Amino acid sequence: MTRTEPAGTPLGDDFHLYDTTLRDGAQREGISYSVADKLAVARHLDELGVGFIEGGWPGAMPKDTEFFARAAAGELQLKHAALVAFGSTRRSGVAAGDDPQVRALLDSQAPVVTLVAKSDVRHIERALRVDVDEACAMVADTVEFLTGEGRRVFLDAEHFFDGYAYDPDTALRVLDAAGSAGADVVVLCDTNGGQLPLGLADTVREVRERTGLRIGIHCQDDTSCAVANSIAAVQAGATHVQCTANGYGERAGNADLFAVTGNLVAKLGMDVLPSGGAAELTRVSHALAEIANIAPDTHQAYVGSSAFAHKAGLHASAIKVDPLLYNHIDPALVGNDMRVLVTEMAGKASLELKGQELGVDLAGNPRALSNTVHKVKDLEAGGWSFEAADASLELLMRREIAGSDGQEPVGPPFELESYRVVLDHRTDGEIVSEATVKVHVAGERVIATAEGNGPVNALDAALRKALQPHLAWLDEMSLSDYKVRILVNRQGTGAVTRVLVESSDREREWTTVGVHENIVEASWLALCDALAHKAMRVTPDRSS
Amino acid sequence: MTRTEPAGTPLGDDFHLYDTTLRDGAQREGISYSVADKLAVARHLDELGVGFIEGGWPGAMPKDTEFFARAAAGELQLKHAALVAFGSTRRSGVAAGDDPQVRALLDSQAPVVTLVAKSDVRHIERALRVDVDEACAMVADTVEFLTGEGRRVFLDAEHFFDGYAYDPDTALRVLDAAGSAGADVVVLCDTNGGQLPLGLADTVREVRERTGLRIGIHCQDDTSCAVANSIAAVQAGATHVQCTANGYGERAGNADLFAVTGNLVAKLGMDVLPSGGAAELTRVSHALAEIANIAPDTHQAYVGSSAFAHKAGLHASAIKVDPLLYNHIDPALVGNDMRVLVTEMAGKASLELKGQELGVDLAGNPRALSNTVHKVKDLEAGGWSFEAADASLELLMRREIAGSDGQEPVGPPFELESYRVVLDHRTDGEIVSEATVKVHVAGERVIATAEGNGPVNALDAALRKALQPHLAWLDEMSLSDYKVRILVNRQGTGAVTRVLVESSDREREWTTVGVHENIVEASWLALCDALAHKAMRVTPDRSS
Repeated sequence: MTRTEPAGTPLGDDFHLYDTTLRDGAQREGISYSVADKLAVARHLDELGVGFIEGGWPGAMPKDTEFFARAAAGELQLKHAALVAFGSTRRSGVAAGDDPQVRALLDSQAPVVTLVAKSDVRHIERALRVDVDEACAMVADTVEFLTGEGRRVFLDAEHFFDGYAYDPDTALRVLDAAGSAGADVVVLCDTNGGQLPLGLADTVREVRERTGLRIGIHCQDDTSCAVANSIAAVQAGATHVQCTANGYGERAGNADLFAVTGNLVAKLGMDVLPSGGAAELTRVSHALAEIANIAPDTHQAYVGSSAFAHKAGLHASAIKVDPLLYNHIDPALVGNDMRVLVTEMAGKASLELKGQELGVDLAGNPRALSNTVHKVKDLEAGGWSFEAADASLELLMRREIAGSDGQEPVGPPFELESYRVVLDHRTDGEIVSEATVKVHVAGERVIATAEGNGPVNALDAALRKALQPHLAWLDEMSLSDYKVRILVNRQGTGAVTRVLVESSDREREWTTVGVHENIVEASWLALCDALAHKAMRVTPDRSS
Repeated sequence: MTRTEPAGTPLGDDFHLYDTTLRDGAQREGISYSVADKLAVARHLDELGVGFIEGGWPGAMPKDTEFFARAAAGELQLKHAALVAFGSTRRSGVAAGDDPQVRALLDSQAPVVTLVAKSDVRHIERALRVDVDEACAMVADTVEFLTGEGRRVFLDAEHFFDGYAYDPDTALRVLDAAGSAGADVVVLCDTNGGQLPLGLADTVREVRERTGLRIGIHCQDDTSCAVANSIAAVQAGATHVQCTANGYGERAGNADLFAVTGNLVAKLGMDVLPSGGAAELTRVSHALAEIANIAPDTHQAYVGSSAFAHKAGLHASAIKVDPLLYNHIDPALVGNDMRVLVTEMAGKASLELKGQELGVDLAGNPRALSNTVHKVKDLEAGGWSFEAADASLELLMRREIAGSDGQEPVGPPFELESYRVVLDHRTDGEIVSEATVKVHVAGERVIATAEGNGPVNALDAALRKALQPHLAWLDEMSLSDYKVRILVNRQGTGAVTRVLVESSDREREWTTVGVHENIVEASWLALCDALAHKAMRVTPDRSS
């Protein structure tokens, strides 16, 4: 692995899309990547086509050392990206080649090294406790040593913007030390994340003019401006942008790779990815959220599932006329999809459009369309909401079509006779939930009882116990999320309850809804729809 | 309610911090405010000190009509903010005074009206299907009619930036029509959210110079730049900024009120809130997330629980030397905390302060204070949250004080022996919930059974039946709200449940919390705290 430049992107080495998910992103509270996770993340990023993947800090973090060793041993074959090791300049008073931390960077065999150095005089004197001369010597020596060993070197100038504002001369001296010693890019880091775009752009422009060096940018999101700051820096002349997937990072996080890339491609017209790469943004964003085990942000710019979701019924008919009047870009450009949300204002136009999206042809069946509109309105008046429950909405549409055609309705794969749930807070303080269901499935009457840690959990367990011997596919289906919303306020515990159930199998996730004054019955209704939807996919003749 | 200007802020009417959580924020997928929720949101925003609160679209949405009616009837007493009704200009071919939608704006009695108008010629011709002359007349007539009726009027110029880029003359004509007819502010809306800060700032500056009008800004977050764009607009001369709490809104959302305010106050040095307001940002952000029933974004700039959390081992010791070298602002400025371990409540100082607010003297009892800190930390690690449940927190504090003084603990006014809840979905389809409680109250053992329309309702009914003969004050107490949040995702129905119960009597409302894997037990815990809190007030010797 000796690539030191991006491969296969139209802009080549002229522009660096640099990812640091595996190092700076891993600082986010709650993220803990295994080495296998790190390899998987790197493969996704390379497939997307980023130019540089910072894999971690070899020598400082054992997992990172192992990651680079396994990458060098052939477990990571990168098509587009160059692999980068992150590390610090030599310690004070030690030759770079004698500093074990610097040697670990060499040992990692990463062809590119990003060195972090302090550029704020207050950090140099108070935290590092050296003078500016020694700080600059530490930078120059380490850069020289690593370039002498054949590495390409970038410099992360930590706390640059705060340092430059406080004492510009020191900040520029550190950059010059790196540049003169052979660093290819000096990266201005807004380490504390306090910058705003207009001021940051001015600084980038000024520093570029004063140093003549190639400028990179690294932004944190503490003012909620990390993406904007990164883009403003590029507009001011930076040609190297450091990001993390989904903005993962310490505190408020880093600049989100997907929003930055979306903006570079769609707004600034820069071909920073290989051909076809932009259309992978949504998929890769979700895959990396999976690996990080963090629920995707549904409202994330460009790649969120709501990023192109339109709620206002008001606009639905106009959207049909010209979707681009209501979207800032064509969602397909970033691999996302326009969704129409069904809300209180549901009209024929938006339901027809929604049907199209779900693969249900309501346009060809005006009676079913009209019945669906009435049904949805009635249900929504009663507290139902199909906005987040596509699977229930699809079932409702298919039931209306089946009804209007005299076909068999699309129901759950069993018939309920009755259920009972008993909750005991016993004298000894123990709390027990037990459910019994009586159902008819595959021609048999089945009774099953199970316990759970709550009423709905017990009911779900009992139903599964009853159905499992008869429905082979039940094993691969599981409940992945469960949400409860109490609807009518000011009525105390007598309010109506809306339950959303998200189910998943190996291939997909689907969400169903149930509403009832009784939370257990509301959950039951959502569970039944979840099973009906799965059954429909398993026996496709029912969905035609 | 006739205020048309912000009150009590140093900048007064010179700068407008304008909140549209209740209208544009409510467009977010999953948000469905009740009228009571809307009133509660407005009260929080007013306490924070925003200048304008847009309450909704009276006439178009029945809930919004009711909101304005109840506000006008005295349910909403605003100290700082002016109340705003949102609506559309008159329809084509109808006099403004004859348009029922315009009349509904008057009927709402809101002293300020924000009118939305199309300013992109493509939307005017293709969606509105009128010519530019008529579009301008619709704006001018409606503004004139409403100002003639004594209203202060702002104009939201929809799709302004796209329209201005495509056909600047039409866009400016619409603004001029509004300005000449008496609109006080013309708000440039990035409705599709496609702008970036540098370009947007140039446009704002140019439009301000060309029109001479007072400029407002309204940004959507589709490029992840809504906050940055709003700030850039202010730097370019806008003096009216429209935001939503936590950035709630359609698609990727709107500009986040808390990040925008944080930036205005901390970065631009603008006193946009009344004295002390900034320190309420974190608290209000979390309270509004509770009301929206959306989990707070832990990584939100300024107000997120991780916004000032430091994980990087690199910095840990240096932070002790000088925290401000590692934070972009002092977190206390926005009511946040650097050492966020589990929560922001977990510090001694903040709990002591909170105790003061609740009338509990923890400062004079260091042992109780220290025990309270530990208890709160432990509970919050298990999913409890006292942010929205002051009554439970007060009980917890008083219990720790009682414990450390050897006094009798502050418990509910009865002892539970056991309860049982039975839920039947019967063969005939009827659903029955029945609860039996066995309690000891006033020296007697009481058994009571009651039905309800759900498990918690039945349990509440049975408990009331058991206690009523012994506790005269129970009659005047009622449950006014009930909220459920499922906490740990990715575990299906087995997740932990947090229940918030709001109770009220003739004088006040108080909120209690319960957490358990079993939703009924979680509700039970919150109900018990609700009764304990009422009992404490009725028998004041217990609260001393």
